[in-house]
Amino acid sequence: MKKAGILGGGQLGRMLLQQAANYPVETWVMENDPECPAAHLCHHFVQGDITSFDDVYAFGKNLDVLTIEIESVNEDALQKLEEEGVKIYPRPAALKIIKNKMLQKAFYKAHQIPSSEFVITERREDLQQHAYLLPAVHKLAMGGYDGRGVQVLKQAADFKLGFDELSVLEKMVEIKKEISIIIGINEVGQTAIYEPVDMVFDPALNLLSYQVSPAQLPEKVLWKAEAMALAVVRALKSPGIFAVELFTDFADNVWVNETAPRVHNSGHHSIEACFSSQFDMLWRIMLDYPLGNTEHIMQAAIVNLLGAEGFTGPVKYEGLETILKMDNVFVHLYGKTHTKPGRKMGHITILSNEKQERLHKANLIRETLFVKSI
Amino acid sequence: MKKAGILGGGQLGRMLLQQAANYPVETWVMENDPECPAAHLCHHFVQGDITSFDDVYAFGKNLDVLTIEIESVNEDALQKLEEEGVKIYPRPAALKIIKNKMLQKAFYKAHQIPSSEFVITERREDLQQHAYLLPAVHKLAMGGYDGRGVQVLKQAADFKLGFDELSVLEKMVEIKKEISIIIGINEVGQTAIYEPVDMVFDPALNLLSYQVSPAQLPEKVLWKAEAMALAVVRALKSPGIFAVELFTDFADNVWVNETAPRVHNSGHHSIEACFSSQFDMLWRIMLDYPLGNTEHIMQAAIVNLLGAEGFTGPVKYEGLETILKMDNVFVHLYGKTHTKPGRKMGHITILSNEKQERLHKANLIRETLFVKSI
Repeated sequence: MKKAGILGGGQLGRMLLQQAANYPVETWVMENDPECPAAHLCHHFVQGDITSFDDVYAFGKNLDVLTIEIESVNEDALQKLEEEGVKIYPRPAALKIIKNKMLQKAFYKAHQIPSSEFVITERREDLQQHAYLLPAVHKLAMGGYDGRGVQVLKQAADFKLGFDELSVLEKMVEIKKEISIIIGINEVGQTAIYEPVDMVFDPALNLLSYQVSPAQLPEKVLWKAEAMALAVVRALKSPGIFAVELFTDFADNVWVNETAPRVHNSGHHSIEACFSSQFDMLWRIMLDYPLGNTEHIMQAAIVNLLGAEGFTGPVKYEGLETILKMDNVFVHLYGKTHTKPGRKMGHITILSNEKQERLHKANLIRETLFVKSI
Repeated sequence: MKKAGILGGGQLGRMLLQQAANYPVETWVMENDPECPAAHLCHHFVQGDITSFDDVYAFGKNLDVLTIEIESVNEDALQKLEEEGVKIYPRPAALKIIKNKMLQKAFYKAHQIPSSEFVITERREDLQQHAYLLPAVHKLAMGGYDGRGVQVLKQAADFKLGFDELSVLEKMVEIKKEISIIIGINEVGQTAIYEPVDMVFDPALNLLSYQVSPAQLPEKVLWKAEAMALAVVRALKSPGIFAVELFTDFADNVWVNETAPRVHNSGHHSIEACFSSQFDMLWRIMLDYPLGNTEHIMQAAIVNLLGAEGFTGPVKYEGLETILKMDNVFVHLYGKTHTKPGRKMGHITILSNEKQERLHKANLIRETLFVKSI
């Protein structure tokens, strides 16, 4: 059996391990918190710091393949492990580009992949020179995640909210839609592309709160989006699973927003909705199996279950019974013992080929199910 | 979080635990072999003997709910645990009836549930008096499993093959079809019934080798079968998941063959083919959630993957690549490190609403995929 390691033990690791049990593979997880969602679903849990060179190197050096479920891992250790023959998904060189928003934007530019206009800022006062980009989004080059390190700047008066360290200032796209495309790519460069999904964000938390798959797009927008997403993934020159997030505007232009080099929240519907889920696809790639079939079995919607505002502490689910009675609804709770506002605590998948039913049930779920504390 | 234990750590436990990770539940497994398929997918693995009173009692006494993945558990310990307030699925009283084929047959008779005519035999020489039941099947009262402890007796000359201990001699039904019906039943007696599945057995090993869901049955046979399966489950007076195996004959009579008080091989298609799988259903029952939806998302077939004749040792899969390229096919390998002839090593699910496609692919899989040793 191949020895496979996952850096990070959150819900993405958890869902990867649920799927791993369909294949002959021996699994390792490293994470600081021994109570994390993935800790009990692997053969070997290693308590350690994924940002530490020594911890990551020690964890990986006897494994055959390694993947990540969060970008903030020690990439120098991954680099050394790769040199020593460990297969890493994504390759450290691709991860390095993606985890630094400055490098990521430069990468799109270098490969002529449409992405919104941007400049680099080092100090908050630099922003004054770039008022022509307003309204804009200011993003920390390093360390931003799930709404942290991202600041909308609508007018010059907002510059005081900007970051006083290395950041990217991006002209805001007049967004018609946010979509995501998941792509699997194997060692020999074969790709498997999932249909785009429509994403609806919670504007306050910048967290994906709602998602419909497949996205409803004019054909020419679909073609453009798929071609761009494939161009991104091919240019990264790394096997693995990638989520390319894109904007469409009102002139039917398509812009790459950002890319995640791993399984992604926008692909969770694929567990039930597609013949091969994003988690299945990553195992196929890591175990050197043929790529899977990305087609839908049935169309889907997903509601993310976030910790409710005003509640911090041991988790309590309100309304779960009502959701579990719904005919075509799948509950995924991540087993986190504690909630806090905005924390990703689970997701709910709705399978239906009827758009109205998907939306009706998604709204019902959002109005019924709450993650609170005891 | 509720504390849930599983007695036995084979593939049924493995698939239960894959599904458990969608719910907030803390999981325990007890099994002698620490390398068993379920050992690494629970929060707490306990090495122990499921047939030992002390081991089972010690395992269960601090848990909220307990289930089994094999009948041969110590039922006295379960009885004591139940008296002390642990919820057990199935209830020990139901398990006691089922695990003894003599009691099981008597139970059907007492509840006027059609089952083939039978007598009890204590010694091999008793068989001579019951030649009028030939052709017949001789089954050990206790301890038979997966083809062991079952002997077909076609003529009086075969009596020498019969068992020389407490057994049931059953008149053989002229079988047209073997079907299975999975039913979930909760604490308050609500039931969720899955559509029947057609089962095709390997006559040599008496192992399920092939299965199609839903079964193709005349409506009146379907109604009879469902009513009988529900009657069995209700009469057992126990919450849990039950698989009722039935025969139909050429006069469209329906006979109960036997019942399993647990998740069952004939329900594995439900993982992908039904909105709520048999594993999901059992967790819903154990966690006191509403019952799930047993409807098909798509029709299915399953091929069981058994260790090939003539190969014993460290496992090697032959033809796996070809199977993994099939569009609508799901591979489940149980992670057993060693194979032997007839051992259940995995199963393959085919989703398709086209009967011809299901059968074509099932045959292709049987001709392509083999479990051998290195």
